[in-house]
Amino acid sequence: MILYGKVVADKLSDEIIEEVKELNQNGVYPKLVIIRVGKNESDLSYERGALKRAEKLGIKAEVLELPNDISQDEFINCLDKVNKDSSVHGILIFRPLPKQIDENIIKNYINPKKDVDCMSPHNVAKLMEGDKTGFSPCTPSAVIEILKHYNIELKGKNVVVIGRSMVVGKPLSMLLLNEDATVTICHSKTQDLKEITKRADIVIVAIGRAKYLNKEYIREGTIVIDVGINVDNVGNLCGDVDFDDIKEIVSAVTPVPGGVGAVTNTILFKNLIKACKK
Amino acid sequence: MILYGKVVADKLSDEIIEEVKELNQNGVYPKLVIIRVGKNESDLSYERGALKRAEKLGIKAEVLELPNDISQDEFINCLDKVNKDSSVHGILIFRPLPKQIDENIIKNYINPKKDVDCMSPHNVAKLMEGDKTGFSPCTPSAVIEILKHYNIELKGKNVVVIGRSMVVGKPLSMLLLNEDATVTICHSKTQDLKEITKRADIVIVAIGRAKYLNKEYIREGTIVIDVGINVDNVGNLCGDVDFDDIKEIVSAVTPVPGGVGAVTNTILFKNLIKACKK
Repeated sequence: MILYGKVVADKLSDEIIEEVKELNQNGVYPKLVIIRVGKNESDLSYERGALKRAEKLGIKAEVLELPNDISQDEFINCLDKVNKDSSVHGILIFRPLPKQIDENIIKNYINPKKDVDCMSPHNVAKLMEGDKTGFSPCTPSAVIEILKHYNIELKGKNVVVIGRSMVVGKPLSMLLLNEDATVTICHSKTQDLKEITKRADIVIVAIGRAKYLNKEYIREGTIVIDVGINVDNVGNLCGDVDFDDIKEIVSAVTPVPGGVGAVTNTILFKNLIKACKK
Repeated sequence: MILYGKVVADKLSDEIIEEVKELNQNGVYPKLVIIRVGKNESDLSYERGALKRAEKLGIKAEVLELPNDISQDEFINCLDKVNKDSSVHGILIFRPLPKQIDENIIKNYINPKKDVDCMSPHNVAKLMEGDKTGFSPCTPSAVIEILKHYNIELKGKNVVVIGRSMVVGKPLSMLLLNEDATVTICHSKTQDLKEITKRADIVIVAIGRAKYLNKEYIREGTIVIDVGINVDNVGNLCGDVDFDDIKEIVSAVTPVPGGVGAVTNTILFKNLIKACKK
């Protein structure tokens, strides 16, 4: 079974559209502000997707483009205005920020109630505590949404997460624990990784290495979720999973592109609706 | 090998004593304030140990005892005074707090720079991010200190943590990841727990069930760390591990009492010194 992201995103989108209508009827017009410093290509690409998705959902999304040489104080001033603007419900700040701006300072400035991609310590702490009143980050949440959509049981299952970043591995592990999975977190220093992944019911890969996970790592029937987005030798997009190598033996796998990445920006708007309702 | 906590606490204490001397020479007199509401016996017991330890270390420790029926606003007023008192470097609030006081509100009030037991979301987030400028909670840190003291390698090792609480399991998992361990987090919904623990190099138990882990759970040579403090049928203190049942087959194990619990209050003062140095 191929776990396509589009159907998940479409279903979530339908739900969001209904919620937007309801909010509109109550005079609330959900609005996201994307803060982008400079013109990084991957930021621009994500932005295009998000703006398109917003339009589809009937949600206002604005981009605040700031110059690459903006000072930290100026950045904070801009952020502060958006923080205080009551017409804005959610804020997404593209990261990494340029060197002169310290992300560790900025994350303490973003209004936690508008922090729809879980940058603020308040939301990171809630994530770890399993407190669902916060916002969980988009990519790990997309993984959970896909698993739920396809009725893949997590309770009591052995889930191996490869990667321990703050963008995917660690927050995803916390979300999986909330779903009562038994979670093993592996990384570059893990010994006998193949032995560990071979025992898993579900393997989730988020290491950023093209086609790393092949059939040597899994046993028949494993479910594989590929969070990687890489470019292979011939310039094509590919994941951290060698899809063609494993597709015959897995019971289910997400494709790249068209898997996890197809769901993430919808989560952003799901979080935005949550922010509106608060 | 029995991993006694006392030697670890003594060694840490010697280091702290030296640091206190140095701070004193610079006119800094480390001071901890313990905030206790009511007269809960386990709070009082911990308090006695902490005050005794403080005296040994040449550290000032004061107890702010508040009445059991104190209102949340009054509690916050008291906390605020301690937060602002520049002679106070660290604050420990005994939990759980009485029902009329919402811990989720209080944790946002405690000054993160004085939050030596990691209650504030700022420190919880830092813990998850692996940012060592924060304070990590005392019990999980005690486990790490014991393992390090006895030169037990963590890098690349398979460490199974049983328990996913915010007091031990989750923060400990994050600390173990920082040490490059491969971490599996198990809990009440885990299936085939014995199979999982039998493959571990190190098993850490923090579930609060007297003598739960016996030799059926481990293979020869495993290292076992017991975080539990329970009372057995005949009224004696015991851990989550059936010590007598496993002692012959493990390569090392912490006793209860005299293991992890013997180290925790020293970590509190280690964190206090860190707070002073900031």
